[in-house]
Formats: sequence, C-alpha cells, structure tokens
Amino acid sequence: MAPITNGRLIFKEIPTGYPIPGKTTVYDTTSTIDLENEPLDGSVLVKTLVLSVDPYLRGKMRAPERQSYTPPFFVGEPLYNFGVGKVVRSENSAFKAGDHVYGVLDFAEYFIPKDITKLEVIVRPEPTLPYSVYVGAAGMPGQTSYYGWKAYAKAKAGEVVFVTTAAGPVGSLVVQLAKQDGLKVIASAGTDEKVKFCKEIGADVAFNYKTTNTADVLAKEGPIDIYWDNVGGPTLEAAIANTALQARIIICGYISQYNGEEDYGIKNIKNVLFNQLSINGLYVTAHHERYKDEFYKVIPKKLASGEFKYTEDITRGLESGGEAILEVQKGLNTAKKIIVVADD
Amino acid sequence: MAPITNGRLIFKEIPTGYPIPGKTTVYDTTSTIDLENEPLDGSVLVKTLVLSVDPYLRGKMRAPERQSYTPPFFVGEPLYNFGVGKVVRSENSAFKAGDHVYGVLDFAEYFIPKDITKLEVIVRPEPTLPYSVYVGAAGMPGQTSYYGWKAYAKAKAGEVVFVTTAAGPVGSLVVQLAKQDGLKVIASAGTDEKVKFCKEIGADVAFNYKTTNTADVLAKEGPIDIYWDNVGGPTLEAAIANTALQARIIICGYISQYNGEEDYGIKNIKNVLFNQLSINGLYVTAHHERYKDEFYKVIPKKLASGEFKYTEDITRGLESGGEAILEVQKGLNTAKKIIVVADD
Repeated sequence: MAPITNGRLIFKEIPTGYPIPGKTTVYDTTSTIDLENEPLDGSVLVKTLVLSVDPYLRGKMRAPERQSYTPPFFVGEPLYNFGVGKVVRSENSAFKAGDHVYGVLDFAEYFIPKDITKLEVIVRPEPTLPYSVYVGAAGMPGQTSYYGWKAYAKAKAGEVVFVTTAAGPVGSLVVQLAKQDGLKVIASAGTDEKVKFCKEIGADVAFNYKTTNTADVLAKEGPIDIYWDNVGGPTLEAAIANTALQARIIICGYISQYNGEEDYGIKNIKNVLFNQLSINGLYVTAHHERYKDEFYKVIPKKLASGEFKYTEDITRGLESGGEAILEVQKGLNTAKKIIVVADD
Repeated sequence: MAPITNGRLIFKEIPTGYPIPGKTTVYDTTSTIDLENEPLDGSVLVKTLVLSVDPYLRGKMRAPERQSYTPPFFVGEPLYNFGVGKVVRSENSAFKAGDHVYGVLDFAEYFIPKDITKLEVIVRPEPTLPYSVYVGAAGMPGQTSYYGWKAYAKAKAGEVVFVTTAAGPVGSLVVQLAKQDGLKVIASAGTDEKVKFCKEIGADVAFNYKTTNTADVLAKEGPIDIYWDNVGGPTLEAAIANTALQARIIICGYISQYNGEEDYGIKNIKNVLFNQLSINGLYVTAHHERYKDEFYKVIPKKLASGEFKYTEDITRGLESGGEAILEVQKGLNTAKKIIVVADD
C-alpha cells in the first residue's frame, strides 16, 4: 500500500492571547505515512479516533522555560491530549492490532508513540458507553471532578457548594457528586442553555454569570462551604467574600486568566485567615493512582444507567481542531468538546 | 478591707487605622473592687499577673457585625487575651485561693470571669519556666506554631521553608521546628537585631525585609516548599511566585493589612493551580484539642533545657497596655510582648 496523507494539528506559534487557528495551530497535510511498512521500533501504530479538548491545553501553549504543572507543547510538533485510538499494527506484546487504546495521543490521524507507557488498552467497564465518553465524563475531566471532590471537598450533607462552569464536563459532574452527597448546589454558567442543563442535573440555584452578578447570588444563597473554581479572578474573589468558616476552595481551573488577560489582583486573601479557609490547586494526575480504581468502578456505571448525566459537543475532523480549541477557551462550546478524528 | 481601685484597659473606640492609646484603648481607674466581699456567684476572683499581647488582637477591634474567626471586643468593656492570674477567692470547686490559672483574662488588675470554662489551673510541665513563658512560647503563640506545623507543613527533610516575622514568638518556634525536621530555613524580620536572633536560632538565610527585597532572596534561595505567612500582601505574592510544585502555604497572620491599609490585590493566585499549592488559614483554637497534650509534653521541655530558644519583651503595668498593643501592630516590639500586670 502506498503512503497516505497523515493530517496533523501542529503547534505553530506561542500565542499571547487566545490561540488563533491557522496561526497558533496549523493543520498540516504535508506528512505521509505508510501504514503497512512504517518502522515501529517496538512501538505501535495508532489510528486516532477521538480526542479531548480541554481548557488546560492553553497552559501548554507557553514558552517551555516557564514552569507549570503540565509540560509545554513544543513549537513545530503536533499537539497532544487524552484520546482514544485503535491499534493498526503492533510490535509491542501489550498491544495487538484492533485493540482500542486510551491515553495521551497526538493530534494526528495516525501516530507512533515514542512513550508507549502513556497508552493502555482501554478498559470500558460499561461497553454501552461510546469511546468519546471515556475521554469525557468517564475520562480525564470526570476524574478531575471525582478526585478533587474526594480529596479536598470534605463535603457534609446540608452544606452549600458553589460550582463555576457548572455545565462543563468537570463542573457538571461536581454538581451531581454534590447533590448525591446531599449538598445545596449553586451553579453558574455562561449561557441560558447551560443554566438550563445545570438545573436538569440537580443544581438548586443556577444562574448565567454574564447577566446576573455572582456576588449578589452568593450573598443571598450563601455563605458557601465549598467553592469549585474553574475560572479564578473576580469570581474567586466573590466566592472568598462569601465563604463560611472553614470553607474549602478547590482551584481546578483559572480560565479567566489563561489568554493574556491582565492578572487580576485578589484583594480579600486575608479572609483565608479570618475564615480559616483551605485552598487547594487540583491537578488530576497527582491523584490518579489513589482514586482511579474507585473511579472506574463507580462513575461509568452511573453514566451508563443515566443516574449521572453528561453532554458532548462534537467537532468532526482534525482540520477543525484549532477552532475547537478556541471555542473551549472562549466558553463557546455547549458541552464537553470532543474531536472525532475518524470513525471506528 | 475597703474597696480598692481596679485598673482596667477599656476598648473605647473602633479604630480605622492603628489602635491609638488613649483613643482606641483607655486605661480606666474609676472602677473599684472589694477583694473580700465582691460577690462571686459561683465564679472566682482572679488577680491578673501576666497578659499576652498578640498581633491578632487588632482583628478583635472591629464592628461586632463583621464575621471573623475570633469574636470582637465590645466597646466600653475591657480587652481580654490569654494570660496567667492567681485566684484570690473561689466559689468554684475546681479552683482554690492561691491557684495559678491560665486562660482568657480581662485586661484588668482583678476580674471575676463570667465564663469560668475559659480558665484552668495552670499546668506547668516545667516549673522552672516563668509564668510569662506559658503565655508565649509555651502558650498560645507557641501552640500556633506547633499546631500549624503539625497540621499543614507536611515537612520533609531537605525541603525549603520561608518564615516571616521569624524573630517573633510564632515565627521563631517555626524556625526551630523546621530546623529540627531538617529543612533549609529562610527567615525574614524587620530589624537587624531580629535578623541576628533568627540566625542564632538556626535560620540558614536571614534578612531584614526593610532593606533587602524579599522576592530577590526567594528567587536566589528558593523555590520554597513551605511558606509560613504572618504578613500577607506583597510578601505573600512574592512567596507564591517562588513556590515549588506542591508547596504548602500556612496563613497564620496578615499584619500588613490589619491596620486600615488599602487591601493589596494578589495577582498570582493562578499559581495555586499551576504549582498545585495548598493554602490553609491557621486558627490555633481549631487544633487545640487534637494537639495540646503533645504540645505540653514536647515544647516546655525543649524551652526549659535551652534546646529551643525564646525571647520576651516585657511591658510593666496595665496602664501601658495600649502602647504595648500598638508596638506589636507596628512591629516595634523586640520579642514576644508580655504585659506584667502584677508580680506573683
């Protein structure tokens, strides 16, 4: 078989603000791959099926010398993120042709991972759930919610939690975990449709933060015992101002300051002392070993049975990957953003 | 015996900035007390010997409707804080005349506590330590250091800790606990004399923050794994900027913003996410039940033997109490501030 085009989404340039499709990221079709003969050197050849698009990817689009919890993308190379693929050929005994694999995949139609340890044959405790869910509610974003809630929320029935980006893949699972634990849930989102979804999944109070003042809602519905922060900035400040004594704040994202916005100074950090707050920065990978078995035992079942709800916003084709990334940074996606690169 | 004058330091007026002696607090000699006949109603009559003066007292000088971890002082009534007194008369079987008691005492030469549960017969595991130490390094400030270190530092040998107000009663014990645990200690204080004391108690790096830039020192000597914050504001921001991954920040005080200074906006809170930080507001009382026995077993012995060092800055006479409080707010005290109200 002759070599075929291997479409790839390349990290072209470090952005200063939002990541611009065609500038920050470029869809490249100049590379080819011979599916039958490409040397594998003990690795596997993977056909990419679905890729996750997450807010945190913006943090990887930085100068490599800047330290962060997640390694940087390298200019000139494909982006990568959690996804599901199918093994085309294998020279590794842990994988065979036809296996579906989960892990960190290149934004490429086909690729041969240098680090095979970042892939594993996918375990689908609930085979009725599509593969895309295993990069969403039953994958990394869902794990983020579950691990963070288990590790830091210290939730007690009757307490009040405030969840931001509550219609998103992380927030929506937090809302449902909180309801399951008997909490009162205040949820915010950026469109009326998302607010509607928050109510459907059980939020007691849900509002559109673009048309309703967050501090006013918290003053009325709080004080809050737990704040799940996906946004940072003034919203974090409003949450701190409305904390109960010994409240817990989980900083899971900081989307308000990912895209070159001026750093917002939080003026009420002394309330951390006065209210005996606990604040933790959540990085899902740090908790994976501890909670992953429990997660795969509990969450897919609830998703498959419909007890926990999830939604997806699918982009088809890797050539639209740059737009998908930008949508997520701007909050224009309507649900968990997935790129379907190829059908199974 | 005829009634005698009972000098008291009254909370006269809620301050907007620093607490001004004669205005915020007034020494009052218009009250009298009959030591032999004053009705006790089941309580005890206490003669105050020593009182602690701590930075946190400023937080009690507020409008009572403002929530905080510590109850407010009430205008027109005496201030109160941890201290040691001697029982003059008792109608409570738990106390007898001549007992020394530790607990929350009025800023008064004599007083009859309404809430007897805030006093206990003092336990001095090391009788060679003077009573004043039991309101300092072996009392609440020492407990603050010990409980906070045990609960939140998660210290590992070889790590780096930065301690502010490191010559003070809380900071100096933190420095010594950290050295005992095998850490590298960076210490800051506000006078060269205090810096010298920091070095005497083992700090590896000690500097005067008024003449040396904190961020520069941390950039050179960090990154830091633990930050013991007694000051907040720009110092906290500099510390956050120089944290290692998974660093722990213990907010024990926020003296830079106690006295009406404009609230300083901390611009790098997103590093809590990027560096997976943990931040905890420390309130000593919340940890008292859990750690007090261990504390009294461990710390007084080390103080009595000289293994742990402490210093005191003594003000004599309750009439100078207002000045003592102001000194502590301005950092003009040279060590743990004690008011000796009366000799034993």
